[in-house]
Amino acid sequence: MNGNELTERLLSGDRRALARVISKIEDEDPQTPDIISELYQHTGAALSVGFTGPPGAGKSSIIAKLIELFREEDKKVGVVSVDPSSPFTKGAILGDRIRLVDHFLDKNVFIRSMGNRGHLGGLAGGSRLAGLAMEAYGTDVVIYETMGVGQGEVEVASAADTVVLCLQPGAGDAVQALKAGVMEIADIFCINKSDHPQANEAKAEVRSTLEIGHELDPDAPMPSIIMTRGDTGEGIEELKEKIEEHRASLEKSGELEKRQRASQREFVVSWAANKMQNKVQERLQRGDTKIMERVYKRELDPISASEKIFEEI
Amino acid sequence: MNGNELTERLLSGDRRALARVISKIEDEDPQTPDIISELYQHTGAALSVGFTGPPGAGKSSIIAKLIELFREEDKKVGVVSVDPSSPFTKGAILGDRIRLVDHFLDKNVFIRSMGNRGHLGGLAGGSRLAGLAMEAYGTDVVIYETMGVGQGEVEVASAADTVVLCLQPGAGDAVQALKAGVMEIADIFCINKSDHPQANEAKAEVRSTLEIGHELDPDAPMPSIIMTRGDTGEGIEELKEKIEEHRASLEKSGELEKRQRASQREFVVSWAANKMQNKVQERLQRGDTKIMERVYKRELDPISASEKIFEEI
Repeated sequence: MNGNELTERLLSGDRRALARVISKIEDEDPQTPDIISELYQHTGAALSVGFTGPPGAGKSSIIAKLIELFREEDKKVGVVSVDPSSPFTKGAILGDRIRLVDHFLDKNVFIRSMGNRGHLGGLAGGSRLAGLAMEAYGTDVVIYETMGVGQGEVEVASAADTVVLCLQPGAGDAVQALKAGVMEIADIFCINKSDHPQANEAKAEVRSTLEIGHELDPDAPMPSIIMTRGDTGEGIEELKEKIEEHRASLEKSGELEKRQRASQREFVVSWAANKMQNKVQERLQRGDTKIMERVYKRELDPISASEKIFEEI
Repeated sequence: MNGNELTERLLSGDRRALARVISKIEDEDPQTPDIISELYQHTGAALSVGFTGPPGAGKSSIIAKLIELFREEDKKVGVVSVDPSSPFTKGAILGDRIRLVDHFLDKNVFIRSMGNRGHLGGLAGGSRLAGLAMEAYGTDVVIYETMGVGQGEVEVASAADTVVLCLQPGAGDAVQALKAGVMEIADIFCINKSDHPQANEAKAEVRSTLEIGHELDPDAPMPSIIMTRGDTGEGIEELKEKIEEHRASLEKSGELEKRQRASQREFVVSWAANKMQNKVQERLQRGDTKIMERVYKRELDPISASEKIFEEI
């Protein structure tokens, strides 16, 4: 199947074509740019939500419940889930995925895990392209789920229009999130496991941290804090409402356009940086190792070496 | 003071010159390439150790004790500590730093926190350059401390010759580290808070995980697992021995050269990628926004836009 056929099938709602397109994106197939160029005009209307937070906070079960609610409204949902790449993790730790298994059988729900292939910048880029492919396929909602609190992962979530940060009580999550710099990207906070004895404490902790941030920037809207239970579904309806309200307020204020422009710009910048990275890597692999020999012998410093290769390319 | 004067002073052991050089590196000062080109020939002999692991595992107190041991041998020690960038964290959360305060007064110990300035690739790059400056200044040991388990942070630690992964018992750290893909970069595991009731359990958990990895790659050496107590210093001597043994075995096997070459190569590649990123960003800021306008209107897809700008540069 060539790229054209594939995109046509995807646009007509062929699930397998979507799966193949995302695999091509993940494998950095040379057809990717052409495919995206075909699909791009059919994107832009979906509700996009990023979920982030430390592992164990229950993001997957919240997302599973949220999908149920969107499905009740007959909306098509796509999920791009980003796991850090590890030879150990590949297929080994699937606990969180199991909760999503019901939806794997629903053909109006498309769930896809993306490995952290390629290099750092590639993580956000690849998952964004996968999201675009889902939109072109016809999903009304695209959810980006990221595990962990590293910056590469944060970028994935923060490219979405609305970012939900999930924390669990009693794990010092708020302080960790603060340290990792993810608190300021969240539009909505979700304290999961609201039946936990320290749930209210966690809420108070988040609130007081947000208030410090709010003092620094009084014009920024105060994010909502929602208490949820991924296991029973409690609070998820409220979470969904807040997500939709947030989206509506972004549209109204013009902030949505600003965010989307910033996210597109970010993509354009990192795609070019990735390309340069690949080109340098290629050159160094192609036996052009004399220059690295000089670096190793300390005759040439690595910045000068890099500048030289950059100029040559 | 110009760049030349500054590097001369640094090479003669002037502490303030070192501090200023690192600030220039952090600020991406245009003098940086020249400074590094002067300093680079004076580097390459130091023992370099990366410490990573989740916040709260006690890395800083272990490092503080380790510095004591190196100081007893009259070795000069440099520490590059990487905190994720956050408007909240800047100067706000310094708990971990306090434990290092004794060493701040010792002029043979140079501790420096690096913010996550610039972009992703820049985190590993900047801290590596700071480490080079410390080596040129005359430190015998350079320790890279990273907080968190994100990939950007992992890169910082993994560029060191020996990587120590610190975990604490009872926090599910092993599973988290596994998920985050940091287990396979560690040469030495350090289970801190060895007096914790679940310390042995944590050790067993790490061991069994390592054994799975070992089966996949039987040629890889099995990392040591050391039990430590940052508060009393228990086990830190053993940790230091293992670090030195690891370095010696790397030298003997030729692996040290391989690692250092790989790390230099990684630096050269990301420096070029960063440069491209900055150039694209500049171009987009310089009012060259027509192309982004077309992306926003979905007339042009972001990959094509990026390729176009790349070609122009």
